[in-house]
Amino acid sequence: MPRSVAAHRQAVAELLTAAAARKGTLRLPLMDALGRVLAVDLHAPLSLPPFANSQMDGFAVRSADIPDGGARLRVAAPVPAGAAPEALKAGHAAPIMTGAMMPEGADAVVPIEKATPGTFPAPTDVDAEVELPTVEPGTYVRDCGSDIEKGALALASGTLLGPSQLGLLAALGLGEVETRQPLRVLLVTTGDEVLEPGTELTAGKIYDSNGTLLEASMRQAGLDVVRTGISGDQPGDLLAVLRQHLRNTEKPVDVIVSTGGVSKGAYEVVRLAMTGHPVEFLHVAMQPGGPQGLGTFEGTPFVGFPGNPVSCLVSFEMFLRPALSQVAGTPSPRPVLRVRLAADLTSPEGKHQVRRGTVVDGVVRMEGGAGSHLVHALARANALVQIPGDVTELAEGDEVEVWML
Amino acid sequence: MPRSVAAHRQAVAELLTAAAARKGTLRLPLMDALGRVLAVDLHAPLSLPPFANSQMDGFAVRSADIPDGGARLRVAAPVPAGAAPEALKAGHAAPIMTGAMMPEGADAVVPIEKATPGTFPAPTDVDAEVELPTVEPGTYVRDCGSDIEKGALALASGTLLGPSQLGLLAALGLGEVETRQPLRVLLVTTGDEVLEPGTELTAGKIYDSNGTLLEASMRQAGLDVVRTGISGDQPGDLLAVLRQHLRNTEKPVDVIVSTGGVSKGAYEVVRLAMTGHPVEFLHVAMQPGGPQGLGTFEGTPFVGFPGNPVSCLVSFEMFLRPALSQVAGTPSPRPVLRVRLAADLTSPEGKHQVRRGTVVDGVVRMEGGAGSHLVHALARANALVQIPGDVTELAEGDEVEVWML
Repeated sequence: MPRSVAAHRQAVAELLTAAAARKGTLRLPLMDALGRVLAVDLHAPLSLPPFANSQMDGFAVRSADIPDGGARLRVAAPVPAGAAPEALKAGHAAPIMTGAMMPEGADAVVPIEKATPGTFPAPTDVDAEVELPTVEPGTYVRDCGSDIEKGALALASGTLLGPSQLGLLAALGLGEVETRQPLRVLLVTTGDEVLEPGTELTAGKIYDSNGTLLEASMRQAGLDVVRTGISGDQPGDLLAVLRQHLRNTEKPVDVIVSTGGVSKGAYEVVRLAMTGHPVEFLHVAMQPGGPQGLGTFEGTPFVGFPGNPVSCLVSFEMFLRPALSQVAGTPSPRPVLRVRLAADLTSPEGKHQVRRGTVVDGVVRMEGGAGSHLVHALARANALVQIPGDVTELAEGDEVEVWML
Repeated sequence: MPRSVAAHRQAVAELLTAAAARKGTLRLPLMDALGRVLAVDLHAPLSLPPFANSQMDGFAVRSADIPDGGARLRVAAPVPAGAAPEALKAGHAAPIMTGAMMPEGADAVVPIEKATPGTFPAPTDVDAEVELPTVEPGTYVRDCGSDIEKGALALASGTLLGPSQLGLLAALGLGEVETRQPLRVLLVTTGDEVLEPGTELTAGKIYDSNGTLLEASMRQAGLDVVRTGISGDQPGDLLAVLRQHLRNTEKPVDVIVSTGGVSKGAYEVVRLAMTGHPVEFLHVAMQPGGPQGLGTFEGTPFVGFPGNPVSCLVSFEMFLRPALSQVAGTPSPRPVLRVRLAADLTSPEGKHQVRRGTVVDGVVRMEGGAGSHLVHALARANALVQIPGDVTELAEGDEVEVWML
């Protein structure tokens, strides 16, 4: 009985949980922390705003000075943004700019448009007066701590640090941040038929696209990646490659990901190499990407993807990427949309199909057929189309779930 | 009359078109090209697959050899993946692995599960025979060029290079790719009240979060960023900072982005500094981010954002980021979803409101109020909630458009 997609995703997450928890922390300047994950609960070292300030260009007043019919007040020294103003005397109104600190005693701002005259007097005009309407206390004042109070939780441990989160840290005056070290993947592609791009192609051979496809996907997902190069189809070669990299204590790896050699053919190098190691080879009720390997190799978590490029990408997106989101806090999950089919389609019963498609204006069009070797079609797609195992036919206009790539 | 959001976005795109067209190209190894844009139409240097190959583990046959009732064939030498097989003699069936090259003469594959016996004979068994059912020509054969034909357009100039596109280039044997040089932004934050994070906060001052927020956003969007540091509120200071950086011919900038000083207050440094330069200051019918500046400064495109952090982020997401997608090909547009409101809301008439929200399971909850200083609330949000100018009230459960961050 094949395993469900959800069950296998959970198994991958469980495999990675300990590795993620073992990772150390790294203190980074804010910009280097983009895409990393916060390693600690971070409490605000100051309130935001740090002081009550004006939300408008206008006059800071003591609201009690202005009765219902309005009042004429003496104009005090202006308060530009960045200044520490003097206390506001009773019966006075201080010209104040947006973001500038409210003078002590002032509790409201009257916008310049509501003042008479409607322009600020020259700073040299020491006898100026202004006619202002009545105003409720607190009007157009951003209170100290109204965004966050000093000491409150600003960001929780495990938060993914994007532009807005880093912007908050900057607003809190922090120049550096404690991040989790990213997981490091050892990526090995296998196959006697596979050659490195940039070399000469000979009969029966193809170029390795899995290595590039997965390394790029993993880097986007916030992983460190170490590539082994291509291993041939001799189990001894693969074992030698893995052990050589696992011995490198300067760059210890947290998880091994292989491509190819996990199916039921006669020359399945990953299956053969993992004989005697606690690695399970199983079938997930999914197409493409059904054959999967999962376990540990000499203590290191091991994930074996199938060998076709589309199967690799689908395996990564359906299992490894969401598992990383769950246990490591990065990357953020793919946006999930419900969109309409541009054309009818059929799907094999009992297998969750992951087709590639292009979403434009709420409609998804398939790119290429179901074949897992169709890497040109994959390169045109911007979404994975999810067709559950119990669905065998869908009509044009039916809604489907898509994951945006 | 304020300008519409769409009209201002188009104006930003037009401002950047010439700068984007002027950029040179850069030849990069595949992995360095992640997130960059293809600079040329790229035609396939070889067909994919490069040769007809088997889609299954099974027997390669001449379909004409097997009549309707099936046939017993001599077993030829097996064809592993990566091998260049001999031609298949009439009356023979060659064991073949998934991805292996079809022997000359063979035109179909019978999966091993349909053979009798259902396992491959030992390679040493030179007299082996196998009973196979009839098969249509082409069955389980991936034809040469069925994904893409040699010479066909593989990727068009302007394509954003993500994992799948780089995977295709690798499959085509390419180790490097010609990319467009990214646009370089000179980012200047302004304000006498603004201090660098990591320094000591004094009365009336706040920390600069705009610089971090925008630099991170720009880097994610594929831009090069040069920071000037903070300029004070003296126009002469700002002009000196800009001219100093524009003179740096080693790092020529393509666009200047400023924050703050574009509104209608008494100390608007950007407005004052741009007096006499062809920079327009206008109001977009949007909240936050209404006041905007746009033009050129000494020949360099100039974009002036307002000074509050949320206004900056919204200005970037609503104008600069989509303009870049349009004229430079990177980044990819934000995914747009329609989701339900978790609670009622009101919105000012005539202004397109951009609220910050968190989308969970198809429902969006607002984060913080409308205030553009609420950077902690922003850091909790994962989406921008779009409320058109003609909408003033929405009820819990109503659908709204959100852009996923």
